[in-house]
Amino acid sequence: MAACAMSTPPDLLARYRRIRERTRALCAPLAPEDLLPQPVPEVSPPKWHLGHTSWFFEAMLLAPQRSGYRVFDPRWAPLFNSYYESQGARVERGARGHLSRPTLAQVQAYRAHVDAAMRDWLMGAEDLGAEVLALIELGLQHEQQHQELLLTDLKHILGSQPLAPAYGDTRPGVPLPIALPAEHAPQRGGQQVVQGGPAASEWLSHAGGVVEIGHAPGPDAGFAFDNETPRHAVLLAPFALRRQLVTNAEYLAFMADGGYEDFRHWHAEGWDWVRQLPQRAPLYWRHEPQAAPGWRHYTLQGECALEPEAPVSHVSFYEASAFCHWAGWRLPLEAEWEALSPQLAWGARWEWTASAYSPYPGFAPLAGAAAEYNSKFMLSQMVLRGASFATPPGHARRTYRNFFHPPLRWQYTGIRPARGA
Amino acid sequence: MAACAMSTPPDLLARYRRIRERTRALCAPLAPEDLLPQPVPEVSPPKWHLGHTSWFFEAMLLAPQRSGYRVFDPRWAPLFNSYYESQGARVERGARGHLSRPTLAQVQAYRAHVDAAMRDWLMGAEDLGAEVLALIELGLQHEQQHQELLLTDLKHILGSQPLAPAYGDTRPGVPLPIALPAEHAPQRGGQQVVQGGPAASEWLSHAGGVVEIGHAPGPDAGFAFDNETPRHAVLLAPFALRRQLVTNAEYLAFMADGGYEDFRHWHAEGWDWVRQLPQRAPLYWRHEPQAAPGWRHYTLQGECALEPEAPVSHVSFYEASAFCHWAGWRLPLEAEWEALSPQLAWGARWEWTASAYSPYPGFAPLAGAAAEYNSKFMLSQMVLRGASFATPPGHARRTYRNFFHPPLRWQYTGIRPARGA
Amino acid sequence: MAACAMSTPPDLLARYRRIRERTRALCAPLAPEDLLPQPVPEVSPPKWHLGHTSWFFEAMLLAPQRSGYRVFDPRWAPLFNSYYESQGARVERGARGHLSRPTLAQVQAYRAHVDAAMRDWLMGAEDLGAEVLALIELGLQHEQQHQELLLTDLKHILGSQPLAPAYGDTRPGVPLPIALPAEHAPQRGGQQVVQGGPAASEWLSHAGGVVEIGHAPGPDAGFAFDNETPRHAVLLAPFALRRQLVTNAEYLAFMADGGYEDFRHWHAEGWDWVRQLPQRAPLYWRHEPQAAPGWRHYTLQGECALEPEAPVSHVSFYEASAFCHWAGWRLPLEAEWEALSPQLAWGARWEWTASAYSPYPGFAPLAGAAAEYNSKFMLSQMVLRGASFATPPGHARRTYRNFFHPPLRWQYTGIRPARGA
Amino acid sequence: MAACAMSTPPDLLARYRRIRERTRALCAPLAPEDLLPQPVPEVSPPKWHLGHTSWFFEAMLLAPQRSGYRVFDPRWAPLFNSYYESQGARVERGARGHLSRPTLAQVQAYRAHVDAAMRDWLMGAEDLGAEVLALIELGLQHEQQHQELLLTDLKHILGSQPLAPAYGDTRPGVPLPIALPAEHAPQRGGQQVVQGGPAASEWLSHAGGVVEIGHAPGPDAGFAFDNETPRHAVLLAPFALRRQLVTNAEYLAFMADGGYEDFRHWHAEGWDWVRQLPQRAPLYWRHEPQAAPGWRHYTLQGECALEPEAPVSHVSFYEASAFCHWAGWRLPLEAEWEALSPQLAWGARWEWTASAYSPYPGFAPLAGAAAEYNSKFMLSQMVLRGASFATPPGHARRTYRNFFHPPLRWQYTGIRPARGA
Repeated sequence: MAACAMSTPPDLLARYRRIRERTRALCAPLAPEDLLPQPVPEVSPPKWHLGHTSWFFEAMLLAPQRSGYRVFDPRWAPLFNSYYESQGARVERGARGHLSRPTLAQVQAYRAHVDAAMRDWLMGAEDLGAEVLALIELGLQHEQQHQELLLTDLKHILGSQPLAPAYGDTRPGVPLPIALPAEHAPQRGGQQVVQGGPAASEWLSHAGGVVEIGHAPGPDAGFAFDNETPRHAVLLAPFALRRQLVTNAEYLAFMADGGYEDFRHWHAEGWDWVRQLPQRAPLYWRHEPQAAPGWRHYTLQGECALEPEAPVSHVSFYEASAFCHWAGWRLPLEAEWEALSPQLAWGARWEWTASAYSPYPGFAPLAGAAAEYNSKFMLSQMVLRGASFATPPGHARRTYRNFFHPPLRWQYTGIRPARGA
Repeated sequence: MAACAMSTPPDLLARYRRIRERTRALCAPLAPEDLLPQPVPEVSPPKWHLGHTSWFFEAMLLAPQRSGYRVFDPRWAPLFNSYYESQGARVERGARGHLSRPTLAQVQAYRAHVDAAMRDWLMGAEDLGAEVLALIELGLQHEQQHQELLLTDLKHILGSQPLAPAYGDTRPGVPLPIALPAEHAPQRGGQQVVQGGPAASEWLSHAGGVVEIGHAPGPDAGFAFDNETPRHAVLLAPFALRRQLVTNAEYLAFMADGGYEDFRHWHAEGWDWVRQLPQRAPLYWRHEPQAAPGWRHYTLQGECALEPEAPVSHVSFYEASAFCHWAGWRLPLEAEWEALSPQLAWGARWEWTASAYSPYPGFAPLAGAAAEYNSKFMLSQMVLRGASFATPPGHARRTYRNFFHPPLRWQYTGIRPARGA
Repeated sequence: MAACAMSTPPDLLARYRRIRERTRALCAPLAPEDLLPQPVPEVSPPKWHLGHTSWFFEAMLLAPQRSGYRVFDPRWAPLFNSYYESQGARVERGARGHLSRPTLAQVQAYRAHVDAAMRDWLMGAEDLGAEVLALIELGLQHEQQHQELLLTDLKHILGSQPLAPAYGDTRPGVPLPIALPAEHAPQRGGQQVVQGGPAASEWLSHAGGVVEIGHAPGPDAGFAFDNETPRHAVLLAPFALRRQLVTNAEYLAFMADGGYEDFRHWHAEGWDWVRQLPQRAPLYWRHEPQAAPGWRHYTLQGECALEPEAPVSHVSFYEASAFCHWAGWRLPLEAEWEALSPQLAWGARWEWTASAYSPYPGFAPLAGAAAEYNSKFMLSQMVLRGASFATPPGHARRTYRNFFHPPLRWQYTGIRPARGA
Repeated sequence: MAACAMSTPPDLLARYRRIRERTRALCAPLAPEDLLPQPVPEVSPPKWHLGHTSWFFEAMLLAPQRSGYRVFDPRWAPLFNSYYESQGARVERGARGHLSRPTLAQVQAYRAHVDAAMRDWLMGAEDLGAEVLALIELGLQHEQQHQELLLTDLKHILGSQPLAPAYGDTRPGVPLPIALPAEHAPQRGGQQVVQGGPAASEWLSHAGGVVEIGHAPGPDAGFAFDNETPRHAVLLAPFALRRQLVTNAEYLAFMADGGYEDFRHWHAEGWDWVRQLPQRAPLYWRHEPQAAPGWRHYTLQGECALEPEAPVSHVSFYEASAFCHWAGWRLPLEAEWEALSPQLAWGARWEWTASAYSPYPGFAPLAGAAAEYNSKFMLSQMVLRGASFATPPGHARRTYRNFFHPPLRWQYTGIRPARGA
């Protein structure tokens, strides 16, 4: 990550506690059974997220940097190592759902052990130094990324149950740690996510030319991942982006017009994908011919009606691109998005861009084990910009580069119209 | 199943309670997390067994036959239907491990609901009639079959954990409901399972001729599945079976002699299977060159040394057949096994036979939904005879026909030598 | 193979020439391009059959037994070895269609080279000895087996062309070496294959009891493969077989009655097979709603109408078994078939039996490399009895045991009704 | 394609004849059998290329535009349609090798039929008009692209034969239509492909800034595909490219240094790819420990020694990228390549770039059926720049954008070092 103004340790400890506590809270409304399954390889069990995020602090920080730290259980590293070749063997990704052990209680004890060690370290008189402080920050940002994944994985786990339960249905008294209405409503946090209405046709133009994108270091720069650096100039042609995301109503019009049946809108690999799709609609939608508009969808609150003006969600890159082709638009480049972002209503969906995930000119990955954090994935994926209601508070920023493979759609993904100016 | 002398309802209720309680007890020493995973499609989560065996009573008996019975949750049938096409849609077999809902507590409530209904029915004044009594008996035998599967599935779940825990390690105070030492020791129940020692070379001869096999109905005949009927005559050539099963020491000799490397011992499909085997040894064995005899194995008590005189276990049909070819023997026919069974030491392992699983001459499946119980599987599988320490007490008999596909070996399978007389 | 009265060398040479010439003649009506493709792994290119049958004489006989024989090209053995592990490495079965080299002309030169060496040997003064004579006989029988496969593979190659050409369409002047009308007509050779008509309901009863089956050695016994031995006694219950095979009209009635849609008629693995079947009908059938009876089929003469009274062909074991279940019948055991064969109208189709392919009691495979000929396949396949119009003249006999896996149906397979007496 | 100065019809006819003749000539040195196999789905049989390139003229031009044209055989369109959804059904790509019909002679007759129709058209008095002239040009460029594919597919077909024949070995008298030595030698055509020697370390620097790339229309602009347009400005940081490609000797140093065993050099998906690679070396290399440098490789002239100074070939994007990471370099961006191309020694290999294949800003695909030519593939592939000895004379240009998926390496692919200036 780029250099950033570090928190002082006392602040850092408070922040550490707050972030770690939120992870715990996200799991609290669940039945313990919900923490274990892995319905598809890309969805990890919540229990695994609980263990992995603690392993990250242990393996990247405590074990190599904190003298006297006792590794909680040396046999666990292969269980909770996600993809770090430098950290030795690991359980195959698709087998995470087979791990009944360690049990949930043991994983919670692991979290407590790591948290106690981190607290002692942060409360100590020791000067931690820039490298350790940077790694702690990385661990916290990492924890926040997994909070978003935990929610989307959980939605997949619950949503693929034949009984399709709602998040929180087993523990009615437990307050939900996230603002669920935000999933389908047009507003989010400080961002002006004004969807639909008269403003739906509002386009924001940009004259093009040289713009700077990426994270710039500086005393007040704040945190950024290495893939957001270095800040650099890009030359853009004139363009326009729509202030609002594509709505369910707009997407239904695409479907009604035969969008899924017309090859001309699709990339060749998207068309292959469509032909094997069990159902031609966004993920979590369920056809119900007798109810207008013919579809309902599963949400964390259970199955419910589609809100026409809410932004469409859970679409693949193929679908986002085909929709835009049908509508006579295109997807934005990530540089276009970043250049106009101060004017956009964003934050409700991760927005597919037309930019392949590549290193910025002059990019250098983090040193040490963290080098594997981002750079080795810079191939065959597409960049998404924005954030979603599942993104933890304070984790979103305009330079953020999220990335997924074109067919994946279990994240809260959406569509931003773009066009030449 | 064949006609059999029915228990009177009071006895039946006691037996019902005893058998159902044993299923519960088998799960008691586990961490709740152990009840959920499905590491391979043929292994079902224990929680699923708990639900399925209750569903069997509900769907086959209570719902169609007991007036006033309230189905516990009509949405659950597809979750706990194993393979009965007549009972409507069902969750794909390989997706049982994705079901976090219903939760364990809900499944336990389901068991209680079914048990209460069965108790009321059995305690009532009503004459249940032969058909209902026969179906209750079938349900109890079915429950016992799943008790064995529950243990072997559990062994696979625990044994495929990187941490390889023992059965019962999380609840040290809970007494184990099964006699674990029996897994590796040469004795079992009333059967004289005398393995190894001077008796290892004891062969039992049979003069051949016409023998009768299969279950014969009669007032004291006891229960049998439909696939054990009708009793019929078979013409056998003279033959001999060894009184004892093949031991670990014998199997190690086969391995040491290059048995897995010599194609001449293997069926063509077995040889293909060997070439993709990650490790050329029975399931659950682990190579440890520095410890004699070079291998250890995972058991329900955790990983331990191989006992040379214990019968080899967890071999596929391919391995059983190849071993016999190497030794100059062959596998028994199921009729040979049944004819000599009074003299055999059996009950420690399910013994692969050379008989393909086919209907007996004149076979007719059960009526109604139970027709699917056995007959539709009479293809591409091999018959196994005997029983294992995991078979519930009272469930083994000489006419029993177990059956599995040639490559499967997560059951307690073993090898009985046969030869021409 | 069993001991048999050997031909004298001069007769043997004439027979060798006749049989080898027929293989060549079968390929003559084809375009050279038809000799190369492999549309599915179980179908071998005709060019490969031409090479493989010559390799068999070279590898089993000439190279090991004929002094002074020069191997045609030592690099070719892996190309034309089918499945003999004892003969070293070989090209993967599914890659035979990728072999453009050796070219057809080179393979023909190979055949000529082998034929010249065999002629010199058979014309020589040398006493060949029983072992060599037996291997020559085996080679000729092997060649005849491949003549049948060559025709059925060819039908698959031509029948899977979008242009669906007829056998012989590219060389109108070349006389066809086989009697094509026989494919669909009810008569065949010396066998009374009287299909349909008033005789369709003619059942032949057998009282059961001990019957002898299998090949018996003796001075006039003729050739048999090792899997037909030893002759042995079997105990049968009373039964009846129908004199005629199931006709297309009967099979259409099964289809019209929803036979493919009713799970009760199918084995579990057959039902899985049906659900992924692209078209619910025998192989080579094509739906044509406007033409009675709604289906046409591809034959070696091109696509044509179904003859209602011709025996149905190209059905899998699953379909054969399901049809019988629907009709209230069952498939014959192979011993039943053999016991009644003198009275049956047979020879038009390979008839699926209910017998799994297992060794006869006391079976011993051939010695040497030929041990792999049959025995290693005695698992997971079903026995077929009879013959088809594609079986070379003189190659059919009542003790013949053909075998295929349950789903395969590119052979001329048919259905013989059986029932208890 | 962009507007271009059109040839006059007489010139065009001569050019049409020359290009079409070359396709025929490329197949002339082959055995007919070599024209049929499809060893992997991405390799098409040469016979298919012969048919497809004629179909392109028929389906895109003659049938819709030439009055009175008789389609050669309307049943053939599905056989020779490659990927044009607008042209109706087509044979699955992986099944092209199963097509024995039409025969080679029939396909040659098809070519003659199309050629005669084109000749009559081009020789007629009619003013063809800009649209038709543009489509003829497209058809000729398309034919040239398939000439390159025909050679690389042919290399794969011959190179995957166990006998590994050389191109032209069956017809020694037939002159080869291509300059085979060029495959491995450092020189090519008019390009200065000076490999190795003292010049190997020659780097060419560029100061960066705004450069224009892409095809510019104009009276003398010549042909370009639509994906090379529109010409547009790009902002580059200072950079340098090496004048020469990476040599076999350099690649061997990467291998000797453990490049294939060190995860740090590889993208995550490349590392997965390496772990399942049967042999850790470029395609067509064969390990031969006793011969320096330990490897030989298959070429169109048969297997031969590696020339250390020849540019490495047949590497995947993963390997190209990993090599550069190991060496401390990176792959060029396509804009960097184009900006410096006048100074580069290029034309021996298709050079992987670090640029994902995306539309240029303002890109619009061709109208009509040709819209599918390029644009639907602009996802998940990487751009390659340059050309190879297999590229037809006159077909290479600096703005050309070739594209393949990262793992594919049966083209003549190579590596160009790049670095920041």
